[in-house]
Amino acid sequence: MKLATVITATGTALARIDGDRATVIDGYEDVGQVLVAGALEVVSDASGREVATDSLTYADLVPSPSKVVCVGLNYRAHILEMKRDLPDHPVLFAKFADTLAAAGETLALPPESDSIDWEGELVVVIGRTVRRADEDEARAAIAGYTIANDVSMRDWQFRTREWLQGKLWDRSTPIGPVLATPDEIPDDAYLTTSLDGEVVQRGDIHDLVHDPVHLVRYVSTITTLRPGDLILTGTPGGVGHARDPQRYLTPGSTVTVTIDGIGSLTNTFQAEDLG
Amino acid sequence: MKLATVITATGTALARIDGDRATVIDGYEDVGQVLVAGALEVVSDASGREVATDSLTYADLVPSPSKVVCVGLNYRAHILEMKRDLPDHPVLFAKFADTLAAAGETLALPPESDSIDWEGELVVVIGRTVRRADEDEARAAIAGYTIANDVSMRDWQFRTREWLQGKLWDRSTPIGPVLATPDEIPDDAYLTTSLDGEVVQRGDIHDLVHDPVHLVRYVSTITTLRPGDLILTGTPGGVGHARDPQRYLTPGSTVTVTIDGIGSLTNTFQAEDLG
Repeated sequence: MKLATVITATGTALARIDGDRATVIDGYEDVGQVLVAGALEVVSDASGREVATDSLTYADLVPSPSKVVCVGLNYRAHILEMKRDLPDHPVLFAKFADTLAAAGETLALPPESDSIDWEGELVVVIGRTVRRADEDEARAAIAGYTIANDVSMRDWQFRTREWLQGKLWDRSTPIGPVLATPDEIPDDAYLTTSLDGEVVQRGDIHDLVHDPVHLVRYVSTITTLRPGDLILTGTPGGVGHARDPQRYLTPGSTVTVTIDGIGSLTNTFQAEDLG
Repeated sequence: MKLATVITATGTALARIDGDRATVIDGYEDVGQVLVAGALEVVSDASGREVATDSLTYADLVPSPSKVVCVGLNYRAHILEMKRDLPDHPVLFAKFADTLAAAGETLALPPESDSIDWEGELVVVIGRTVRRADEDEARAAIAGYTIANDVSMRDWQFRTREWLQGKLWDRSTPIGPVLATPDEIPDDAYLTTSLDGEVVQRGDIHDLVHDPVHLVRYVSTITTLRPGDLILTGTPGGVGHARDPQRYLTPGSTVTVTIDGIGSLTNTFQAEDLG
């Protein structure tokens, strides 16, 4: 099953996506509410108004997660090609709800940064409250997966020894377009990031050093994970900052992150209008 | 004016503190609600039930801030004595609402860490929504100040290159006991941290490299600050991890952080009971 949060005439609504058809389901304003209510099964066969998916405008998939935890370098092949050691522990940093944006949203390039970069990522979406989860609890706590572009202001990220300030700009991290339940993910699944149609990142999402179940266990050792919380699992090689010459996003750039079994997250960038 | 969130028979309530007397004011469940409502002036002369402050049990001062942003090394004298350069930019990391705890609360020492340390800190409490604040807007956005103990699991903090995982343990960061409006802070104000009665940290809160107004400006360049949001401004020298021999919190340890003009934040630690 795939679920989206979509914009309606009166606000936002839940939509279940089946191929090129979507069913708009009453009673929930967004996917976050479904997760908090533990209602994934309820909405799996709920009826509603049917529309074509290409008529949908996406809203924030989960508008106010209590936590967004992100993982640094995590793709085995990329770490080994960089001749680095595989990390013993996941490198974690945070985002806030205000950092998130929607699929399809035009994203601002703030004038304070001149090195804004892409990072396509698989996202774990939490469906149950867990603390110190064992392996079975961690697996059961994963409601499904979505896609992120962890857009990073590299100049701010590397100003100090902590990455946070390059990762926290308002509405800089699009998430979506759908929550795909785990059964939607094929055994052979790749993440691909394209910049204006050119493939710039490609990674096997089953080749993570710290896989989704391990990440839920690890993070939940430290802090309670709640329905709607998000774990961004890291990006494969091919970001603009590591290229020679370096490449960054410019006004008009379009980035699409595709993951097999989930779909495609597309956003276009424009210079921020400070009014 | 000093405001606290206190536990009552039916939940939590707002209390205005005047010396050893507190006035419990109806209509607000916590200080966060007062800030969101922009009602500091309203509650400054609201009447209510009077009780002695020593009968109060404190609850979470601001239960669900949208953002908690923390600053690394920021005390000028301590940086200079360590023979480091003064940092050009504040080093930022994050906490979530679940990370916070109350004044007076018994805090858990989780069994997963064997190096749990204290960090007394001045906290800026935001009273207005601001983005890209100029100096006047930043000053006006500061509702007041409180105290934190940024309790840090040093082994987890230094496992990887990002500090977050040592700073994010559930209910590990007590905040309080009161929000003190800026007029309460004297020109000559010191932060003192005591461990079991022994002074272990002392710093001049006016000697910050990045002062409260600058921090509001800096953080609000990146992300919107909202009423109830907290900025922890860094800790002076004297933490346990930097001592020779190193010292950490143990079951029964009591830490008191005092800031002139605000008050004292006291918490006792016990081994966490995993049930």
